[in-house]
Amino acid sequence: MKEYSHGGDIYSHYEKYGVYPVDFSSSLNPLIAPIEVSNAFISSYAKSFAYPPHDYKLLRQKLAEKENIAIENIILSNGASEIIYFIPYAFNKANALINAPAFSEYEKSLHNKNIDYYYLKIENQFKVKKDIIDYVKKDSIIYLTNPDNPVGNIIDENILYSILEKSAQCGSIVVLDECFIDLTYNGKSYVSLIKKYDNLIIIKAFTKTYAFAGLRLGYCISSKKNIEILEEYLPPWNISMSAYMCGIAALKDSTFLENSISYIEKEKEYLLYNLKDFGFLIYGSQANYVFFYCDEHNLKEKLLEKHILIRDCSNYKGLSKGYFRVAVKKHDDNEKLINAFKDILNG
Amino acid sequence: MKEYSHGGDIYSHYEKYGVYPVDFSSSLNPLIAPIEVSNAFISSYAKSFAYPPHDYKLLRQKLAEKENIAIENIILSNGASEIIYFIPYAFNKANALINAPAFSEYEKSLHNKNIDYYYLKIENQFKVKKDIIDYVKKDSIIYLTNPDNPVGNIIDENILYSILEKSAQCGSIVVLDECFIDLTYNGKSYVSLIKKYDNLIIIKAFTKTYAFAGLRLGYCISSKKNIEILEEYLPPWNISMSAYMCGIAALKDSTFLENSISYIEKEKEYLLYNLKDFGFLIYGSQANYVFFYCDEHNLKEKLLEKHILIRDCSNYKGLSKGYFRVAVKKHDDNEKLINAFKDILNG
Repeated sequence: MKEYSHGGDIYSHYEKYGVYPVDFSSSLNPLIAPIEVSNAFISSYAKSFAYPPHDYKLLRQKLAEKENIAIENIILSNGASEIIYFIPYAFNKANALINAPAFSEYEKSLHNKNIDYYYLKIENQFKVKKDIIDYVKKDSIIYLTNPDNPVGNIIDENILYSILEKSAQCGSIVVLDECFIDLTYNGKSYVSLIKKYDNLIIIKAFTKTYAFAGLRLGYCISSKKNIEILEEYLPPWNISMSAYMCGIAALKDSTFLENSISYIEKEKEYLLYNLKDFGFLIYGSQANYVFFYCDEHNLKEKLLEKHILIRDCSNYKGLSKGYFRVAVKKHDDNEKLINAFKDILNG
Repeated sequence: MKEYSHGGDIYSHYEKYGVYPVDFSSSLNPLIAPIEVSNAFISSYAKSFAYPPHDYKLLRQKLAEKENIAIENIILSNGASEIIYFIPYAFNKANALINAPAFSEYEKSLHNKNIDYYYLKIENQFKVKKDIIDYVKKDSIIYLTNPDNPVGNIIDENILYSILEKSAQCGSIVVLDECFIDLTYNGKSYVSLIKKYDNLIIIKAFTKTYAFAGLRLGYCISSKKNIEILEEYLPPWNISMSAYMCGIAALKDSTFLENSISYIEKEKEYLLYNLKDFGFLIYGSQANYVFFYCDEHNLKEKLLEKHILIRDCSNYKGLSKGYFRVAVKKHDDNEKLINAFKDILNG
């Protein structure tokens, strides 16, 4: 089995201790999903023993409306990870540029490509700076995340434009991962830029936004031409009937995301206030997770004893021991986390 | 949208006529799935808003027991189609050999490969014959299906051995698609051969066997080394929590497949008796579907008027107008089909 280096591994913990941990390591919407989703899930059962509609038209239509683009600009994927794994295959480029730190699946999907890293520096608060332009090469896939993961910094608009321009000029594509943007207060999505830049591929998902991690539903937005290329590479029937129907249901609630962001912002304030009080150093944290440095390097292990799971970020390229990420969860859980921190730090 | 050339497209029919057709075009187990599966599906809801266990261990364990192999020899996939699409990427061969006719997704997954076709001849009842050995080249992926689709012929054991031997000698791999074997009376699976041939990759799925077409669950069996290669290529979390839990539940019923085969055999006899009576020419039909030739070339269109969907096989490479495939379904449905045939042929 390939090494697992992500959050959300509640099952290994259960196997070891017989208890599911409170999971702060995967950054899912704490409000989970609108009530319509449960009804859709139940209804999907009767339709799960036939093939799903091959073009998944209704969900693509609803997403096109939400994103203000045409249906031809959307392809669905089995979580964002499926599209991440197919992009290097479908757009066969010799090189890649990845931030360090970044989601490790970009790198894992790039079999035999030449990879350059743009290191996010602590003196820049781990933000992408103008000098990234010097790293944009020809025949490349440039990976950007907005807001980024694990830090949670929002990309600078002008830097993004510069990257897109230079990439377009030198035959490179930009993969902009916006999986967390819909849970980010004042977060600006760059979906509309696909009309201007046909070298821009945007990845989004229901995984974090509606906590569909176990349902598996992502999507990709790009020019009609790029979507047609991806259609040739992605397998047919890649979305389950449940994910399809739950996706349609989730989009029906127009206030859910707004409410989620308000809830997350309020709870994030609570977390940040306390974490700062502990003397932790906070960076980024614009999305639905908080990223910090703390001198207690064994924080993860000590919390596991209390059946609380957080993301130790020391295995990210460009980070070292002491960096952690915690999701913003429901208030009771967040309180539990803060109390656990107090216990550990005071004794 | 890429052209859709498969069965099971009940949604386009619904869109056009406002009625779902009785679907004989996709060959799913007519008994659908054991009752345990419904309970598992409902239970999976509460676990669908977290990531699934990354190693899907319990289902792989249960499958290993069923197939009498080690857990290291199994990888799960999002339906058989996902593994079909990743094989050419993971095992980068210059050439491919595909039967004609065969499942069209083999060909579609082989971007930029040199493809040779072994034409199944009517004078051989569309069976694979010894001369296929001459088509086995070096640096190739050889696709075989047992029983084959759409005809339903079982592969000759000695021919399979010869193909495996020659392929092993010339650095080629054999992909043996056994998606229908568990619904085939006296069907012999060649899973045990992975111990002898490390160039053998076997594809199986719950899609047909348990009618999981909308749940999406397939798996692949091969040497530990090949499975490790596939693990590097397949995206993480590729199986939904529902598919995972329903898969485990389906395997609990040890008599379900036996009962399914008995039911299918009895109903197939009913279909064959009547189709022969109409003067249709029957070929293969060893699995849970019947393949035939009939002089009425517009059979599909005429049945659609009666809201019955069958598979017109004229778009398969190597076939022409007049060839059709129908699934063996429940008795009431099969009777409906036979009565519809009578109407069309007599009127």
